[in-house]
Amino acid sequence: MKIELASNYGFCFGVKRAIDIAQKYENSATMGPLIHNQDEINRLKNDFNVGLYSNLSDVKPNDTVIIRTHGIPKNDLKELKKSAKKVINATCPFVTTPQNIVKNMSKEGYSILIFGDLEHPEVKGVMSYAADLEDVHVVLSVKDLEKIIFKNKKIACVAQTTKKKECYLEIINALILKNKEVRVFNTICDATFENQDAAREISKKADVMIVIGGKSSSNTKQLHSICLENCKDSHLIENETELENSWFKNKEFCGITAGASTPDWVIQKVIDKIESFK
Amino acid sequence: MKIELASNYGFCFGVKRAIDIAQKYENSATMGPLIHNQDEINRLKNDFNVGLYSNLSDVKPNDTVIIRTHGIPKNDLKELKKSAKKVINATCPFVTTPQNIVKNMSKEGYSILIFGDLEHPEVKGVMSYAADLEDVHVVLSVKDLEKIIFKNKKIACVAQTTKKKECYLEIINALILKNKEVRVFNTICDATFENQDAAREISKKADVMIVIGGKSSSNTKQLHSICLENCKDSHLIENETELENSWFKNKEFCGITAGASTPDWVIQKVIDKIESFK
Repeated sequence: MKIELASNYGFCFGVKRAIDIAQKYENSATMGPLIHNQDEINRLKNDFNVGLYSNLSDVKPNDTVIIRTHGIPKNDLKELKKSAKKVINATCPFVTTPQNIVKNMSKEGYSILIFGDLEHPEVKGVMSYAADLEDVHVVLSVKDLEKIIFKNKKIACVAQTTKKKECYLEIINALILKNKEVRVFNTICDATFENQDAAREISKKADVMIVIGGKSSSNTKQLHSICLENCKDSHLIENETELENSWFKNKEFCGITAGASTPDWVIQKVIDKIESFK
Repeated sequence: MKIELASNYGFCFGVKRAIDIAQKYENSATMGPLIHNQDEINRLKNDFNVGLYSNLSDVKPNDTVIIRTHGIPKNDLKELKKSAKKVINATCPFVTTPQNIVKNMSKEGYSILIFGDLEHPEVKGVMSYAADLEDVHVVLSVKDLEKIIFKNKKIACVAQTTKKKECYLEIINALILKNKEVRVFNTICDATFENQDAAREISKKADVMIVIGGKSSSNTKQLHSICLENCKDSHLIENETELENSWFKNKEFCGITAGASTPDWVIQKVIDKIESFK
């Protein structure tokens, strides 16, 4: 039986990069959870003694502190630089981009519109970079635009990296109809959609599919549902202990994909176990 | 019987302004027809001796030359300034705006996209202001985008003033999905749509509607059709000689609108004739 990974799966570029950075800084601490995966945070603690701070007040003068993938607000970064010995920025470059756009456009006299969740740490970080905090507006839909009064006639727009493009366009269109200049930055990251496209593709060739990820994870369940459309023997598992020998009997092609919060080492353990069944 | 004009009708702001300018410069000549209405051009010739040139080579050293509402290409303007004694710019300010945007954005390193007709004089003028004439692209639909290779990653967009907003948005949306920054300038003028909205409104109140304009004019016919939806006694006429006394028998409210190429003096003659029926 052939075993093949989807062309895109699991961690995105930004998460992989943050973990690489954390592994380089043993005995450091992250400001907030580095990524949304407890097993991986435990591994970094056990193997590299990378700790976890919840508050700025936890930081001690000799600390090396790592900023997580979502980024943090500008003033928190300033505070952190004062209180820690060393600050390592593991903010995803795709998140640093909208932070810089908001900073520059705001300075150039644009009102700022962010398409995203006001409560999401990424959005909190991005909006903090506006020169005028009263002229940065966060919306989730066209309806939200109704309440907004922009201070300027020129509007610069960015989107939370994980949002849907179609919804962003709807908001942009409504803005263009009512404003003289709308400067649109496409800051949406394709990673989630690339994982889905790749799962769709490989599941068409596979006669058994293994989807690895949290059973309550929304993006993992979405991958599983896509695979089931093309391959009825698609199994969702959290780790290798759930694998059953019988799934692979008389199968020729086993496809593998993983949710956005699944570390590569969990995936490797699954592959090793399947190999052992042969 | 009450007689009332629609809240918007006839000439747009830019055309009215150009005629006011032409009337101030007796014995001048326009470079190309000032507006698309032969009666009005004849009137300017008869009453103000405003002539009409078709080619730059027609211009004589002592001439005062008026630039028409659609504007002219940058190099033609340069030539004109060399060959005429005085150049008066009657380009509509709503057309000057995209000319300046193209000039500035092109200088700032943006590729330029124009939504419009490549053969339209306004578009020819606007595109001539690009610093790099090989990186200014004119499209009419999303399909036209396929052949385009932009030199830059940042794209600035303007639209011909008389185009439909919905089509502009379709093109913008396709661009946003494929480019990091799209700077959208809403240069579409509302005049045509304002005339239509106003005709719709007044025809709901009227028991007789008079629509004045060319019988082959597309925008006049559109006004007539809108009026007919709300008032079955809607009549399309080119001038006052076509009015019939019987149309106004037992009527209480006469609404009037006019196509974009109908001068105010033609409208006034129509009103005077209706008044005389009372």
